[in-house]
Amino acid sequence: MSKFYNVQPETLKTISAAILNKNGIPERESKVVAASLVDADLKGVSSHGVLRLAIYLKRLGNKVIHPNPEFEVIKETNSTVVLDGGNGLGQVVSQYAVDLLKVKAQQSPISAVTVRNSNHFGAAAYWAAQLTDNDMIGIVMSNVEPLMPPPGGASAKIGNNPISFAVPAGDHYPIVLDMATSSVPLGKILNAKSKGESIPEGWGLNHLGQSTTDPDEVVNGGSLFPVGGPKGYGLAVMVDVLTALLSNGAFSDQIHSMYNDLDKPNSISHFFMAIRIDAFSDPSFFKQIVDQYITSIKSTPLAQGANAIFMPGEIEFLNKEKNEQNGIQLPESVVKELVQLAEQAGVDVSELTGTTAVQNN
Amino acid sequence: MSKFYNVQPETLKTISAAILNKNGIPERESKVVAASLVDADLKGVSSHGVLRLAIYLKRLGNKVIHPNPEFEVIKETNSTVVLDGGNGLGQVVSQYAVDLLKVKAQQSPISAVTVRNSNHFGAAAYWAAQLTDNDMIGIVMSNVEPLMPPPGGASAKIGNNPISFAVPAGDHYPIVLDMATSSVPLGKILNAKSKGESIPEGWGLNHLGQSTTDPDEVVNGGSLFPVGGPKGYGLAVMVDVLTALLSNGAFSDQIHSMYNDLDKPNSISHFFMAIRIDAFSDPSFFKQIVDQYITSIKSTPLAQGANAIFMPGEIEFLNKEKNEQNGIQLPESVVKELVQLAEQAGVDVSELTGTTAVQNN
Repeated sequence: MSKFYNVQPETLKTISAAILNKNGIPERESKVVAASLVDADLKGVSSHGVLRLAIYLKRLGNKVIHPNPEFEVIKETNSTVVLDGGNGLGQVVSQYAVDLLKVKAQQSPISAVTVRNSNHFGAAAYWAAQLTDNDMIGIVMSNVEPLMPPPGGASAKIGNNPISFAVPAGDHYPIVLDMATSSVPLGKILNAKSKGESIPEGWGLNHLGQSTTDPDEVVNGGSLFPVGGPKGYGLAVMVDVLTALLSNGAFSDQIHSMYNDLDKPNSISHFFMAIRIDAFSDPSFFKQIVDQYITSIKSTPLAQGANAIFMPGEIEFLNKEKNEQNGIQLPESVVKELVQLAEQAGVDVSELTGTTAVQNN
Repeated sequence: MSKFYNVQPETLKTISAAILNKNGIPERESKVVAASLVDADLKGVSSHGVLRLAIYLKRLGNKVIHPNPEFEVIKETNSTVVLDGGNGLGQVVSQYAVDLLKVKAQQSPISAVTVRNSNHFGAAAYWAAQLTDNDMIGIVMSNVEPLMPPPGGASAKIGNNPISFAVPAGDHYPIVLDMATSSVPLGKILNAKSKGESIPEGWGLNHLGQSTTDPDEVVNGGSLFPVGGPKGYGLAVMVDVLTALLSNGAFSDQIHSMYNDLDKPNSISHFFMAIRIDAFSDPSFFKQIVDQYITSIKSTPLAQGANAIFMPGEIEFLNKEKNEQNGIQLPESVVKELVQLAEQAGVDVSELTGTTAVQNN
């Protein structure tokens, strides 16, 4: 039985931003980071939600994230920018990059910003989805520290680099894909480990690069399995190329682990691309077509035991609608940590501790 | 024991082009198609090689592929084109699109051509790799007829739409990813069926949308499984958006099967994108970085039983080098069919039948 607290999203945003602000992040940037984290919690993607605040603060405290980064445009054209993120918080760097991309996109229908020297930016989908409001398709990627071996390898050498793709629709929610390039995230394997369960073939490898069903073997010197083997590997390589190699950023062993290398900069890279729909089609017409496409996919006869067909990202939008109304269910451990971080920073938490309902799940 | 014939690539190209030419395809276009097919055979990707000639000719004969398509630019900007392929052979349409893309890319560092009303274009990698010669990154996609259900669906509604990504390197081969978005292609399941073998979980679904290990159930009303479930599904949706939805082309049930719907146009769509490296970095410097990256990946300690780490596309380049020297090993069935197609078209096949060595494998 885990205990959950019901927290209003605005409360969570206010407190998270205040904690960041008290830790040296300027007010506007604090709100940017808080908005990204709370959006993930709203969408049910709690792995990228406020539970990340603690590690961000730890790294800020260790001075391996810069609270006031200087961004540097290394190179630019009408449609492209190479940006150095100055080792700022990933969300601060990414909001700057996306805003820059929107300006570029006004001049050039297909534009891209590649970013080096950044940090964890939360959920990739949060950035890709911002572009759909402007009748654009958004493509966002990030590299991360080595977590997967290439096929035939015994140890991790490449990140399970996430890819997001967002498309505006008409009456429907935007289509928003957000996927890591491993079969499953490490969290799922840690979860099985904590329950003493075995994991299916194809999730992880042991320290010899052999497939294993024992989560302990994955966690102790093993690695994650690329989704579809060579396919996930190839996609992760593509992400490395567009993020780190185009920006002359860090790759493979040059990237440090967010959680394990607490005294070294993370040094990850991102890639943001905007595709303006009006270069190809009238945006209203395009969105009608997207709606027809969604209707077609969702009309697929259901498999036994299935209740509905969902488009990529649809479940997350449904979660967000529900949680905006009812509040976010946060596990007790996350709330306790948040209260502790707030108290350390001298932030008032009465709204968090005073008004929340306690539930048993 | 299958019988193989050793055929010189130039012979194969000459005969394939001559057969196409005699079937009403202009000389230059015949060579374009032949070059794409023989390149696949050289690379060991025989599923996309000259064995496809028969179905192309069948569809040309049934007048559901146009031998002399009229291309129409539906809309264009400095960096984008929407092209109607006029129902031409996929390779003829694609070579036109890639050539157009190279012109656009001279003006705009990131350019794209989206194409509707086309046909099977061979291996996606063949088109993406053409861009690496011009210091560009190439991204190429195509949609295909429904072969996979969305997660929760019982029947096929979306193609196992391929994605290719090609990057120039310095001393190394270019990095060339080419992947379908299903776990495996249908050919692998047909292969297991012909041998009476079962297939692993995660390859295919039966007609109720349930996972099956019986290849018969996949072939008889079943469907292919998207690689990684929601991930392969999401990637296939992304391809549909960039190919068919941006070009106002056909999608899902509007696409007809190349092999089953012999009297209806295939109506598939493609997407071609070029990213000019000089917009981000000095191309020579970039290629050095790519080489360093490749060296880093290939230095991963080997898993037990593995002999080497390969970059995406590397095995295909090694095959090509070997086969350019030694000739292509074609199965007897493919050679017989080719001889038959040549004789029907009045093409001299003495070079094919006269000089080839017969081998037992």
